[in-house]
Amino acid sequence: MKYVKVGIVGANGYSGAELIRLLLQHPYASIEVLISNSTTGSLLTEQYPQFQDIIHMKLDTFNINEIASRVELLFFATPSGVANKIIPLCLEKGIKCIDLSGDFRLRNGDDYVHWYGFEHENVEYLSKAVYGLAEYNEEKIRNSQLIANPGCFPTATLLGLLPALQGEWIDPNSIIIDGKTGVSGAGRKPKVGSLFSEVNENVNAYKIGHHQHIPEIEQSIFDVTGNKVNISFTTHLIPMTRGIMCTMYTKLVKKGTIDEVHQYYEDIFKDSEFVRVRPIGNIPATKEVYGSNYCDIGLYVDERTDRLIIVSVIDNLVKGASGQAIQNMNLVNGWDRSAGLASAPIFP
Amino acid sequence: MKYVKVGIVGANGYSGAELIRLLLQHPYASIEVLISNSTTGSLLTEQYPQFQDIIHMKLDTFNINEIASRVELLFFATPSGVANKIIPLCLEKGIKCIDLSGDFRLRNGDDYVHWYGFEHENVEYLSKAVYGLAEYNEEKIRNSQLIANPGCFPTATLLGLLPALQGEWIDPNSIIIDGKTGVSGAGRKPKVGSLFSEVNENVNAYKIGHHQHIPEIEQSIFDVTGNKVNISFTTHLIPMTRGIMCTMYTKLVKKGTIDEVHQYYEDIFKDSEFVRVRPIGNIPATKEVYGSNYCDIGLYVDERTDRLIIVSVIDNLVKGASGQAIQNMNLVNGWDRSAGLASAPIFP
Amino acid sequence: MKYVKVGIVGANGYSGAELIRLLLQHPYASIEVLISNSTTGSLLTEQYPQFQDIIHMKLDTFNINEIASRVELLFFATPSGVANKIIPLCLEKGIKCIDLSGDFRLRNGDDYVHWYGFEHENVEYLSKAVYGLAEYNEEKIRNSQLIANPGCFPTATLLGLLPALQGEWIDPNSIIIDGKTGVSGAGRKPKVGSLFSEVNENVNAYKIGHHQHIPEIEQSIFDVTGNKVNISFTTHLIPMTRGIMCTMYTKLVKKGTIDEVHQYYEDIFKDSEFVRVRPIGNIPATKEVYGSNYCDIGLYVDERTDRLIIVSVIDNLVKGASGQAIQNMNLVNGWDRSAGLASAPIFP
Amino acid sequence: MKYVKVGIVGANGYSGAELIRLLLQHPYASIEVLISNSTTGSLLTEQYPQFQDIIHMKLDTFNINEIASRVELLFFATPSGVANKIIPLCLEKGIKCIDLSGDFRLRNGDDYVHWYGFEHENVEYLSKAVYGLAEYNEEKIRNSQLIANPGCFPTATLLGLLPALQGEWIDPNSIIIDGKTGVSGAGRKPKVGSLFSEVNENVNAYKIGHHQHIPEIEQSIFDVTGNKVNISFTTHLIPMTRGIMCTMYTKLVKKGTIDEVHQYYEDIFKDSEFVRVRPIGNIPATKEVYGSNYCDIGLYVDERTDRLIIVSVIDNLVKGASGQAIQNMNLVNGWDRSAGLASAPIFP
Repeated sequence: MKYVKVGIVGANGYSGAELIRLLLQHPYASIEVLISNSTTGSLLTEQYPQFQDIIHMKLDTFNINEIASRVELLFFATPSGVANKIIPLCLEKGIKCIDLSGDFRLRNGDDYVHWYGFEHENVEYLSKAVYGLAEYNEEKIRNSQLIANPGCFPTATLLGLLPALQGEWIDPNSIIIDGKTGVSGAGRKPKVGSLFSEVNENVNAYKIGHHQHIPEIEQSIFDVTGNKVNISFTTHLIPMTRGIMCTMYTKLVKKGTIDEVHQYYEDIFKDSEFVRVRPIGNIPATKEVYGSNYCDIGLYVDERTDRLIIVSVIDNLVKGASGQAIQNMNLVNGWDRSAGLASAPIFP
Repeated sequence: MKYVKVGIVGANGYSGAELIRLLLQHPYASIEVLISNSTTGSLLTEQYPQFQDIIHMKLDTFNINEIASRVELLFFATPSGVANKIIPLCLEKGIKCIDLSGDFRLRNGDDYVHWYGFEHENVEYLSKAVYGLAEYNEEKIRNSQLIANPGCFPTATLLGLLPALQGEWIDPNSIIIDGKTGVSGAGRKPKVGSLFSEVNENVNAYKIGHHQHIPEIEQSIFDVTGNKVNISFTTHLIPMTRGIMCTMYTKLVKKGTIDEVHQYYEDIFKDSEFVRVRPIGNIPATKEVYGSNYCDIGLYVDERTDRLIIVSVIDNLVKGASGQAIQNMNLVNGWDRSAGLASAPIFP
Repeated sequence: MKYVKVGIVGANGYSGAELIRLLLQHPYASIEVLISNSTTGSLLTEQYPQFQDIIHMKLDTFNINEIASRVELLFFATPSGVANKIIPLCLEKGIKCIDLSGDFRLRNGDDYVHWYGFEHENVEYLSKAVYGLAEYNEEKIRNSQLIANPGCFPTATLLGLLPALQGEWIDPNSIIIDGKTGVSGAGRKPKVGSLFSEVNENVNAYKIGHHQHIPEIEQSIFDVTGNKVNISFTTHLIPMTRGIMCTMYTKLVKKGTIDEVHQYYEDIFKDSEFVRVRPIGNIPATKEVYGSNYCDIGLYVDERTDRLIIVSVIDNLVKGASGQAIQNMNLVNGWDRSAGLASAPIFP
Repeated sequence: MKYVKVGIVGANGYSGAELIRLLLQHPYASIEVLISNSTTGSLLTEQYPQFQDIIHMKLDTFNINEIASRVELLFFATPSGVANKIIPLCLEKGIKCIDLSGDFRLRNGDDYVHWYGFEHENVEYLSKAVYGLAEYNEEKIRNSQLIANPGCFPTATLLGLLPALQGEWIDPNSIIIDGKTGVSGAGRKPKVGSLFSEVNENVNAYKIGHHQHIPEIEQSIFDVTGNKVNISFTTHLIPMTRGIMCTMYTKLVKKGTIDEVHQYYEDIFKDSEFVRVRPIGNIPATKEVYGSNYCDIGLYVDERTDRLIIVSVIDNLVKGASGQAIQNMNLVNGWDRSAGLASAPIFP
């Protein structure tokens, strides 16, 4: 028996499809409603034939009353600028909301115009949202109606970086983050830059200095450590579908051996089943978390330059989106943290 | 509680690693022994870091007495020419054996020299082996001690082709199979032809007319339908890791509409949870079964040429190897056919 | 000094860009006009930064009078259904036209509705067009004003197949063509099916039985050999950018050893600098012609089934489009066949 | 007529094959000798079928006297640790040597043990070698008998970084280099880490803090600018065959707008035909230099962090190896810098 009825708004995107895959193996949640504006009326299997004989549902249009009668919790896997208009309606109806888009991640409403390019229509709700970085916000998440699920890059970045800041090992003003991502993060909407012929055999640096994940990362660093920082954050599109690696360069301010830093990380994450600190000398590769909810972290102290280099990897569609959303759903409902999320990575 | 203790010989190869991944999510089987000659003594996680914090085991050398004391069932994920020497020892100790290599698939011992290039050392055991194509051999498999798990191409080919032959829709002498495979089937042993730089942006036809899967396919066609056939079978290496597609060209001998042929296929597979006959007009792609135990089949009747074209796709490491091996383990133990195998495909 | 002034209509597509690359290294032709409706007014380097510091031109709109005053020869690298409207205007102005689209390849105007889905507006010009398969039509091409440059699949298919038919080695009714192509053939226009996330780690069979290249291939087979045939032709999208392989299955009707068939092919192509018949036992891979104008052919006689298997590979954007177009331009102008086309393939 | 006779030692590797491709289109140099220890006696086309009908040569073993009688210039495309033993013999015979390996790049012989893991056998020759970074060492190269061709990463790094240091725009101690490379740089020798199944859908950080290109880059920075620096240098293997991108993070010390910095770069490279400084706002992607000898540079001033971010891309087998070697051969022989190197990049 499944206890909680859930729905997905934006079921036709890649994060939506990944939510469906993960929810199918969840012991307590059942999918009741799938919403897609662009493909309303079609069968899910017309969009995603992999679900044939597994789940037979139609994609519906958004109707708040009908949805309210059918689900207790809604995932929003919508493009930027959509959820901010709809979520308040859902909250009023008593539906718990987990927003995978960025619409409720920033506390300062004005930032949406600057970083996202749209005007937020319900800024008064920003303070009600809890940032869903489960490893750092578990208690608040448990008691929230509205969870702003972290971005893919922020997830990889923050899990790798926060312990170094908490332990005051590094200079907060020295942080440089070099991100590499697969192209599924760009979604299923067709655009030239996401075509196979453009992405294959290619690396592309994009949005240098003005990526919308910058304020999200800086805000979380402040929340957890009290440091107001300006990070350097550069993202690269590389020829793969899934996976994010963040290579992070930081200046050590405390004399520390790799053993001490490594032990500190292990202590921080000793109860976090989805963060795996790699043994010293071992740096994770993205494929080693493929399809799973893990975030793997590797550490290197470069004595020639007094820098701590942190490498953090996730599957952008799982821990960077849908898996983390389910982790948050588990917290909200008081279930096992890893319910439905226990699969090992697929390799090769 | 897990009921049955199993081991894997050849745990360091890709099929071995995939067996581990799938067994970890199996409700009734527990992994007790991992054997690898090439990496004996190392930790599994040194070879496959994806398993950190999930399974902590050493890779051992093969010792029949120790193994016999620790497991009831052994998977052989070894290269061709290995299992034929060892399996008889294991059977004598009462260990059930599921061989993922080709060593017990052919009934005629001489064929091993011709098609595989080695001399089989225990030909008297060939008749004791049951061919593990579960959709066609279920009863025999249930009662067997030694299961010859089908090859990757034969699995895709036979599931797609046999109904057309059973229904006498096609001329058995007209069969042409054009196979496309990802490179993981070639294993983890380094060779020039498997290097990224050689495989990427490339298609390669190999072993034309003398692939070792030819006699296996022809033998099974004979077993199921009584037809002695010579097939044309050509395999192509394409730039992907997982996945096999077999496009099969056959001459229609019975006037049949696509609806009739399609219905016939649906009837044949109505109780087979791992075979999905696609709706008319819908041809499966390999990624739509990625990471899963499904075999998806698409059908097309070309009226211009009176040919039935059958497209069959599998994940070569799952339904084409380790997943089917677990399906066979389930039958041997009287468990649910789909125990441990219920995951949906990962897409994209 | 460059002797002939040329222009490209559809310069913003992949074939257009490839024409530019090849024309830049051509000794006798200079690019004077680049036309693109979708990106009129922009710089070529805004669309294709690889040309920075090499060619500095704007993309213009189509104006017949201005074009007529500036070029002697026009390449049409336009989508299907465009060139048929414009080319007659150009011919009237005395401009030689080489059409890389399918608009003038079929002699029967009605076929355009059936196979291409558009109504041809100038069917009376179909008989004036010469099919630009240079290895078979050289004399006619030399004297033509309008050349219908062959499609990518037809080029690979016909060069591999015609000798077997000319020599009457095979049954013309037995022809089955299994084509595999990179995705650049689908063009730069964004669509879901061409996205990296959909193509990577995937094989996709498409347009089974109704690909628009079927009538083109059958028409050419008739023209060269007098055989009216119905071919089976199935195309597969595989995860690469460039390259086509056609694996062709045919029934031998004449007893012939592989040596005899091979010798026959070598004789046919002994003066064709762009067709390389591989030594017996050697099957070509697509990457071995990457970036070049070669068509490589491998032959295999399967004695178990009395079939001749022919494998033919090209770079779809060069020999399958822009390279062959330049080869045709060379013939039309009486230049060396290989002017501007002599580069070796790039590997790896 | 070709004026200079050249040979290649290590012709069977990827850099060797790329030298052959480029030399074939060179107007003044002819290939007379191909040396390969691992495949002596075989035809080049057995190793690299792409050269069929283009160049017909055997791979020979190394015999100094015979080589001396047949060539004037030798390229060494050998693994680390080979050329240092052989090149002195060649120099004594009056053969000019261009070494694509690292054996003569470092001035301090002891560094070879530390960074390369071998003992250099002819340290007295290190001072005779000229570092072949043509854009910075042109005069010395012209007069040299022994050219140490730069490494792939150092080429991309130095061309991007040196102007910022020369202009004293940046703090020399702030340099962080994040490199991404295709796998062809790892060569054709089979190893697990270069297999398609391991590289595809994966990113891998390797040799963090101890890559052998670190001392080479630091030495060149010192030579050109007088700065003794310790750089942070991290390399990542990404799923592509060709291409290197270096993303470089540096601290601005001089107040400078992006316009001023950009102008400074344009001035430095105004006579360098192979370095293309991209317009402001435009960051290069690796595929935009594919197959060509270009190094493209993009610049970004991040005002939030006062950092100058420099992105530099090359084709690792061309500008990062064989193309630059030919550029050096051109200088040594007093030819046009771009003889044989004028091809535009191949895209897509």
